[in-house]
Amino acid sequence: MSGWIAIVGLGPGRETLVTPEVRDVISQATDVIGYIPYVNRISPRDGLTLHATDNRVEIDRATHALTLAQNGARVVVVSSGDPGVFAMASAVFEALEAQPRFEGVEITVMPGITAMLAASAAAGAPLGHDFCAINLSDNLKPWSVIEHRLRMASRADFAMAFYNPRSKSRPHQFGEALAILREECGTDRLITFARNVSHADQRLNTVSLGEATEDMADMRTVVIVGNSATRRVGPYIYTPRSAL
Amino acid sequence: MSGWIAIVGLGPGRETLVTPEVRDVISQATDVIGYIPYVNRISPRDGLTLHATDNRVEIDRATHALTLAQNGARVVVVSSGDPGVFAMASAVFEALEAQPRFEGVEITVMPGITAMLAASAAAGAPLGHDFCAINLSDNLKPWSVIEHRLRMASRADFAMAFYNPRSKSRPHQFGEALAILREECGTDRLITFARNVSHADQRLNTVSLGEATEDMADMRTVVIVGNSATRRVGPYIYTPRSAL
Repeated sequence: MSGWIAIVGLGPGRETLVTPEVRDVISQATDVIGYIPYVNRISPRDGLTLHATDNRVEIDRATHALTLAQNGARVVVVSSGDPGVFAMASAVFEALEAQPRFEGVEITVMPGITAMLAASAAAGAPLGHDFCAINLSDNLKPWSVIEHRLRMASRADFAMAFYNPRSKSRPHQFGEALAILREECGTDRLITFARNVSHADQRLNTVSLGEATEDMADMRTVVIVGNSATRRVGPYIYTPRSAL
Repeated sequence: MSGWIAIVGLGPGRETLVTPEVRDVISQATDVIGYIPYVNRISPRDGLTLHATDNRVEIDRATHALTLAQNGARVVVVSSGDPGVFAMASAVFEALEAQPRFEGVEITVMPGITAMLAASAAAGAPLGHDFCAINLSDNLKPWSVIEHRLRMASRADFAMAFYNPRSKSRPHQFGEALAILREECGTDRLITFARNVSHADQRLNTVSLGEATEDMADMRTVVIVGNSATRRVGPYIYTPRSAL
């Protein structure tokens, strides 16, 4: 029997956001691999081994998945959100490229609801016009690249979604990002902080860039900055479809 | 009984990509409103009225949904993909803003799998690093804005996803976009054309920018341009998680 890998997204948290095809492939798996809180979302059953690992070892986790699949296992690699957005899909392909012995392992990627789209839906439609997604962590790129992208995105008048805006190990960079955004976009621009999006304790907070402070974000927050036309209508935040 | 509107995304086509919460809210609806091919995806049943309209009247369609909901109907507005990405959510909020009589109508947005993420998954993980999404139609913005955004996105070294790259009424603008991209990114950059993504007749074609021609895209195509590090590994296209 030949094995395979399915790299899947579980969505941001609410179980009604998990697609049927992801549910189905998990039901066929012999092994589920992923970061501890995501693997904890999978129900144990006979014939299924759950491999929950720490977040900082994506390439080891990917190599483990490839090894199991090459030996005939049906392996599901779980991410939250969408596996192709700042998640495990690229890590698996990096591991595949670095280790040619895994050539020929069958790999399928199954999309999921990524956090920015769940956050946008919860707020209204702030990503309703051209937008970008930027990972604000400098673990895998220099901070100077992030600064440059913030400036280019501002000058493009993109709405912006930020993943991993702030962590305990880098508490002050998000304040620098806010300073750049104020400089490029002015202080009236709307910014939405969506914490624990789609979970029972989801919390949304929309303020102006002038009012925004770095402690409004943490690692469980997705941040959405509007474009120059983003506005409020009643309790909703939205970006019109048109641009001047 | 008070009515409501749920603005939902049906995903790009494959029925196993429709989220359970969207299935559930459709089962509660008295009315479903949307563009003809999306409404055609909804099964008729007693007590449900299907309103299929032409694509060019989003604001009329939104006003119709608000009117029905204010009169007590349970209205589901359907888009393909995600309703907040170049789809109906912003149109409903525009209609709400323009017509204060609808203030107080309960509106919920439910996310869906947007086409670029299904296309990215089908190709591998070309959106695995910072990226942007641009609607290449100039129906709602001047072409000069699109050109400017292509240049800014190139200089940010974003991967890029393009919606509505080309139509019969504007067959040549996509060729202009390709020329700008070649100028900014060089001819070796990878570009993926994903047609009818997630449908049975899905077709993927990845070439270099130097090889790309405008007739590779039509209105049923999502286009993904890699960043400077995007590459092939076996049959897959992926963008590494890191940047220099």
